[in-house]
Amino acid sequence: MRTALVIGTGLIGTSAALALTSRGVRVHLRDRDPDAPRTAAALGAGTEEPPEGPVDLAVVAVPPAYIAPTVAESQRRGDARAYVDVGSVKGGPRQDLVALGGDLSRYLGTHPLSGRERSGPLAATADLFEGRPWVLTPTAETDTEVLNLALELMALCRAVPVVMDADAHDRAVALVSHTPQLVSSLVAARLEGAEESAVRLAGQGIRDVTRIAASDPAMWVDILSANPGHVAEVLAEIAADLDETVRALRALQSSDEAKREGGVAGIEAVLRRGNAGRERVPGKHGAAPAAYETVAVLITDRPGELARIFADAGRAGVNVEDVRIEHATGQQAGLVQLMVEPTAAPVLIAALRERGWSIRQ
Amino acid sequence: MRTALVIGTGLIGTSAALALTSRGVRVHLRDRDPDAPRTAAALGAGTEEPPEGPVDLAVVAVPPAYIAPTVAESQRRGDARAYVDVGSVKGGPRQDLVALGGDLSRYLGTHPLSGRERSGPLAATADLFEGRPWVLTPTAETDTEVLNLALELMALCRAVPVVMDADAHDRAVALVSHTPQLVSSLVAARLEGAEESAVRLAGQGIRDVTRIAASDPAMWVDILSANPGHVAEVLAEIAADLDETVRALRALQSSDEAKREGGVAGIEAVLRRGNAGRERVPGKHGAAPAAYETVAVLITDRPGELARIFADAGRAGVNVEDVRIEHATGQQAGLVQLMVEPTAAPVLIAALRERGWSIRQ
Repeated sequence: MRTALVIGTGLIGTSAALALTSRGVRVHLRDRDPDAPRTAAALGAGTEEPPEGPVDLAVVAVPPAYIAPTVAESQRRGDARAYVDVGSVKGGPRQDLVALGGDLSRYLGTHPLSGRERSGPLAATADLFEGRPWVLTPTAETDTEVLNLALELMALCRAVPVVMDADAHDRAVALVSHTPQLVSSLVAARLEGAEESAVRLAGQGIRDVTRIAASDPAMWVDILSANPGHVAEVLAEIAADLDETVRALRALQSSDEAKREGGVAGIEAVLRRGNAGRERVPGKHGAAPAAYETVAVLITDRPGELARIFADAGRAGVNVEDVRIEHATGQQAGLVQLMVEPTAAPVLIAALRERGWSIRQ
Repeated sequence: MRTALVIGTGLIGTSAALALTSRGVRVHLRDRDPDAPRTAAALGAGTEEPPEGPVDLAVVAVPPAYIAPTVAESQRRGDARAYVDVGSVKGGPRQDLVALGGDLSRYLGTHPLSGRERSGPLAATADLFEGRPWVLTPTAETDTEVLNLALELMALCRAVPVVMDADAHDRAVALVSHTPQLVSSLVAARLEGAEESAVRLAGQGIRDVTRIAASDPAMWVDILSANPGHVAEVLAEIAADLDETVRALRALQSSDEAKREGGVAGIEAVLRRGNAGRERVPGKHGAAPAAYETVAVLITDRPGELARIFADAGRAGVNVEDVRIEHATGQQAGLVQLMVEPTAAPVLIAALRERGWSIRQ
């Protein structure tokens, strides 16, 4: 790939442009907002000038609802040899492109699974896709040259290509991304009118469950609008389980012992299924979270405490796989949880103890 | 307080005993399992010997269903001048104690908000309660001496006392602890039978939402069984919002534009209410999460990388308030997100850049 056209210079488009430019591809930038490509070009993402002839690859990085018309128009203009989009939903845009008479042999729907809290070209970086999965959804119609140009794009962005059927992709993101977003918002919404004394008791559990409830509503309306069927399906399944759970809780209030026992069984079943599902969530390097052991170290809030812990861990030859800092409300002391390989845990504990750290086991 | 009796030497009871012993209180240990006090005593939590006369304070640290009978029996034996329990639910045990004819003037229901993934005396530590809220639920009947002994217990454990009405406490923990637990389990349960290709796309969002789904079912059945009414109430509210959300998603699939617009409005409302609720969740030191800025640093998986970052942050005089490591599936590169005071962010960015770190902005 020697030339590319990025249409839509927001976070994803500009990041891809930065990655391609840094690897020697000549990148042309286009957006319906004329200021956006100027910003992207100033960041070193490419040039605002239109290409002189068809480029090797057009990367369409616009919101889901605009993908099909943008690809169709670009194809009519003969902008490129191949066209990919990078939207977070894949089924609808493809159907729309068929309806608009687009050339399906020259188009490939893709989705890089990397996002950020921030959006726009100023948030873009060339390394946004490094090591992240990037789904591509080829069909029998897809020209092999187009597939290979898309794979080259992913390689230049240092992403990990994953081939999926478009509908399977949309079901998957409904399950692992779109549904968790809405459920997190629903739990957080309960706090909106809660008493201050209640909110004060919040700990790490609800903090984690509601973290993504802080996401941008406009962006999520776009995403959810493009995948309503699959998300509604997963949410309806959760709603059914939720109704069962409420029934089980009500049964626990019954004076009838058999009913109470049924309630206990119902609650326990939900919790056990949650255990089983959680075990499947990939951690770092795709490993299950259970593969690591946690070493908890008590710290104060003095600057440099964390540095000393990590330095001591490094001296012991231990690689910390993940870390979580848990702080006490209104206090200056806290707990650092270090996740390490099971074989490294005793080494780390001994090394930290020797250096005077207080380990909680 | 000079003497105490801890009844129930699991995680909470043994931790309280360790804290009291370390501050010079003579602590007697009792449990229905005779091995448990022996283990706790071996850890330095106190003595297995029964007290010679009434102690100053009896701390009842048994599962919620056993609190009332244990307190009533202990009061009949005249074990102590004052009795507190440390269960995670407060209304039911109190009612049960009334029914059992317990002495309400000599009893105070309390709840330290500190738990761990592990349980049992071996998981106990004297610092378990340090800086954490510890709720106490006095009533007009509570003797002032009992209240003061409970406050002394909390002070010796370095906890932060919070006075609440028992029912308000149970509603609060239903909202901020028990409901998030069940919702996390319900989302994780959806992954139990999911295809591997779908689970592979899981990112940090669902990882956070489902973290507590790994909790111990037996312990949570105990807790939820003691607070079913309040939890069912919050869950029913979430269920109503969830049904509305499913309806809004279905409306997005409609061919009627007015219906689609209604769907968009419905989805946006859920997301915005989630934003508002999330803003109320206290972060470290009780501050809202928005009070910190995130500095994202690209790292490789070489040992010592984290140590170097924290050392460089420390040299720049910057205190890292929280940290999150985000790793790419199957790859050796990752992102460290450092949360710092807004004024410290530019200092940290400049210092890290100068030392060769790649910052993502």
